[in-house]
Amino acid sequence: MEELKDTQNEPDFRNLAIDRVGVKNLRFPVDVREKSGGTQSTVATVSLAVDLPHHYKGTHMSRFVEVLNSHGPVLDVKSLPRIPSELQARLDAQRSHIEFRFPFFLSKAAPVTGAQGLVDYDVVFEIDSKEDVQDFILTVCVPVTTLCPCSKAISARGAHNQRGQVTFSVRFNEPVWIEDLIALVEKCASCELYSLLKRPDEKEVTERAYDHPVFVEDLVRNVAALSDEQENITWYRVEAENFESIHNHNAYAVIEKAGA
Amino acid sequence: MEELKDTQNEPDFRNLAIDRVGVKNLRFPVDVREKSGGTQSTVATVSLAVDLPHHYKGTHMSRFVEVLNSHGPVLDVKSLPRIPSELQARLDAQRSHIEFRFPFFLSKAAPVTGAQGLVDYDVVFEIDSKEDVQDFILTVCVPVTTLCPCSKAISARGAHNQRGQVTFSVRFNEPVWIEDLIALVEKCASCELYSLLKRPDEKEVTERAYDHPVFVEDLVRNVAALSDEQENITWYRVEAENFESIHNHNAYAVIEKAGA
Amino acid sequence: MEELKDTQNEPDFRNLAIDRVGVKNLRFPVDVREKSGGTQSTVATVSLAVDLPHHYKGTHMSRFVEVLNSHGPVLDVKSLPRIPSELQARLDAQRSHIEFRFPFFLSKAAPVTGAQGLVDYDVVFEIDSKEDVQDFILTVCVPVTTLCPCSKAISARGAHNQRGQVTFSVRFNEPVWIEDLIALVEKCASCELYSLLKRPDEKEVTERAYDHPVFVEDLVRNVAALSDEQENITWYRVEAENFESIHNHNAYAVIEKAGA
Amino acid sequence: MEELKDTQNEPDFRNLAIDRVGVKNLRFPVDVREKSGGTQSTVATVSLAVDLPHHYKGTHMSRFVEVLNSHGPVLDVKSLPRIPSELQARLDAQRSHIEFRFPFFLSKAAPVTGAQGLVDYDVVFEIDSKEDVQDFILTVCVPVTTLCPCSKAISARGAHNQRGQVTFSVRFNEPVWIEDLIALVEKCASCELYSLLKRPDEKEVTERAYDHPVFVEDLVRNVAALSDEQENITWYRVEAENFESIHNHNAYAVIEKAGA
Repeated sequence: MEELKDTQNEPDFRNLAIDRVGVKNLRFPVDVREKSGGTQSTVATVSLAVDLPHHYKGTHMSRFVEVLNSHGPVLDVKSLPRIPSELQARLDAQRSHIEFRFPFFLSKAAPVTGAQGLVDYDVVFEIDSKEDVQDFILTVCVPVTTLCPCSKAISARGAHNQRGQVTFSVRFNEPVWIEDLIALVEKCASCELYSLLKRPDEKEVTERAYDHPVFVEDLVRNVAALSDEQENITWYRVEAENFESIHNHNAYAVIEKAGA
Repeated sequence: MEELKDTQNEPDFRNLAIDRVGVKNLRFPVDVREKSGGTQSTVATVSLAVDLPHHYKGTHMSRFVEVLNSHGPVLDVKSLPRIPSELQARLDAQRSHIEFRFPFFLSKAAPVTGAQGLVDYDVVFEIDSKEDVQDFILTVCVPVTTLCPCSKAISARGAHNQRGQVTFSVRFNEPVWIEDLIALVEKCASCELYSLLKRPDEKEVTERAYDHPVFVEDLVRNVAALSDEQENITWYRVEAENFESIHNHNAYAVIEKAGA
Repeated sequence: MEELKDTQNEPDFRNLAIDRVGVKNLRFPVDVREKSGGTQSTVATVSLAVDLPHHYKGTHMSRFVEVLNSHGPVLDVKSLPRIPSELQARLDAQRSHIEFRFPFFLSKAAPVTGAQGLVDYDVVFEIDSKEDVQDFILTVCVPVTTLCPCSKAISARGAHNQRGQVTFSVRFNEPVWIEDLIALVEKCASCELYSLLKRPDEKEVTERAYDHPVFVEDLVRNVAALSDEQENITWYRVEAENFESIHNHNAYAVIEKAGA
Repeated sequence: MEELKDTQNEPDFRNLAIDRVGVKNLRFPVDVREKSGGTQSTVATVSLAVDLPHHYKGTHMSRFVEVLNSHGPVLDVKSLPRIPSELQARLDAQRSHIEFRFPFFLSKAAPVTGAQGLVDYDVVFEIDSKEDVQDFILTVCVPVTTLCPCSKAISARGAHNQRGQVTFSVRFNEPVWIEDLIALVEKCASCELYSLLKRPDEKEVTERAYDHPVFVEDLVRNVAALSDEQENITWYRVEAENFESIHNHNAYAVIEKAGA
């Protein structure tokens, strides 16, 4: 094979280091570790990047895919940190950033009949790495029911409610489970969601939501308060967004724990 | 200027006519005629296409943009048919297809306080043209409140409700107004949406929705029944989709009038 | 358990049958059969619907999820038709419509170095069923390289090229493989895509694309011509869309075989 | 009118202040000031938020819409700061955050024939305000052509190229024009985009791109270097993303000026 010019390896004289360079929006099948002991198969959308010193013209994009291929399919909080280390080694970089976003499924029993059904959640694993120091953020996106306390208080009957979405990100000092973060959020809403509800279940979730009204403000405060009690959660950011049933725009609220 | 080869104009020997060829996803500022007499400025996403006889290798993409530019900014049900005619003439085609999708705004008074606010709707103008015969379909996408009749009937208190979206397409034998189609749909839901509601308004819409529960099935039937009464509507297709507040998936229903 | 009112089962007097009613946008993990003999795990976005006779007020949404749950995870062209049959039986319907959309992965060897990498494709399984007659449409969405023949012919050097997407739907009279449909499309473009290319591979795909320029018109004609030669494909619709590198809008073309 | 309970105004005892609470995804027609002196009409997607002290249960969502309504349709860098001030006053807040995202159009002459056509760009106006101190970030999203230097260097003919998108955000110490930021970015790519190109123009842009190959790394460095020369730009973040024509994933690079 002839020797092909390595343009990326040429020197660069603009004197500008690059914070992140890499690949984005790459879909990849993965197996995610479950709290119950097994794994579940899903599909991740992946970004991988490293920094680039000012004196190099370009990075080598194919090596990102090689590192991803060599990691194997199983994603978990313990093995994932090997990817940024490997990227830094293979690409001669000091920093790296990786992100895996994927749907995660929980099997839930309906509250009265016990009928089983899968609920889907988006989850993000993100690591920002500088030399040997890694910063892992785990995010779960949890759909919930929210019922408006104001609407309930002022109305003679009924109360507007809607699907909302809570985006809950944490840093932690010992491994956390996706399942536990989802459960924490679901306790804080007017009601959790199910995929399969028979009539007795629908009665139950309707009344439960009516009995537990929350504003987006309440929802993020509830999540923040529970997180403050968890010793393994060292930082959090929680955003709630309501797809208001009475408006064509959304209501949202955010609390971020200071001192990240 | 040198004579540049016209590759598109070369003959093609695969003996395959092309149904549609053109441009897609082109954003363009437009002025849409309002029922009240004026126009409103908005931004359309445009597709324009023609057929291509089997003996030509390609169409001339730049002419689509020239035809669009020459039409001028005002879009209305009366002037729009000139675009397919002009496309067919400029591109020596027998058929054409155009589509303009844009947000349209209505100013609404809140039901009790009368506070004014704009509500946004997606609207689509679509013409399928064959020689001199044009088929115009007008679509309005109307966000609404839906409250579940089953949840209300079985629950001791409250009823789940949510934002839904109705996609209502019509053919007509005399010009119809976007505003009238939106109003027709809004009458069929549990409640219409507003952008600005003070507390007395919120009480009103909460109770109105509770008093008018509809399934997605009811919603499409209500729209269909009203459409059947309108002499200027010769065909319709109505789809309702509910962003269920108790599930992470949607419920939907469709009725299409036979004999298009 | 108390007897809860079955609102859906009540009579309806609007005399309007509903074409489709059901669930939409439900995510579900599935295993898709591969040509090589095994299966691959992926995540589908699912719609399921039935018709509803004019005399019923509503359908029973939870049964759709029950039918989906009872099917088991393996999706293939042979077993999928059981779902519409089961929906019609469980919901006392005469018609049904199902759709499964999921990413599908192929491992490909780079053309010179043979380096392996996964490429992702969107695939749709869709069945429209009326009593015992089922109409199955299989769609593959194939990203490709397209290089413009006009740009190449008129330019002293280079030629604009871009990523394009081919959406290829077929009906068939004996089972077809996703892998074969993808391969058919990839042969018709300027070049196929890879996830992992080393420099000798990049040289090869650059030159291959330059040597095989295609308009969107050529691309759909090439796919149509190959499909016409396949005895098991009884109908097709092929759309190509180019994310033009010289415009901020797309070029597209469509051929649909007559006589569906 | 009866006195309705003001639930939002009630005290809260969780002792958790909220960083941001407000409305999101609200569409609103606006007029954007142009460098040439006039304005252009477009449609913005708007977010508005304030902070909420720990002792209040909720904010008053309708006031956000009232403040937006009262501002009037014209958006420019000079008048926009009135919105956060007004939000803080009306909602008794110390901080606020607003974001307006809208398509912006430039009329461009094709490089050889001079044919005029509109090109669309996404623009974001964002202000983060704390008491009297406002932090305004202006972002332009500029689609461009990028041609790969490696592919050109190693290939006997041609070079892969594609549409890319540059997202360029700046802080500034005197007003900047959207038009000038777009022009700055377009100079840094292999070629700028046009909506209307005749054959002599297509020859010109093909050859220009071939003569100016850039990696995503080059593109962000070029933008950073030009920004460093602009006295009115006090901070920037530039991200380039290539929709690679040889892969189904994207390449990206980011430089952010230190010391924001």
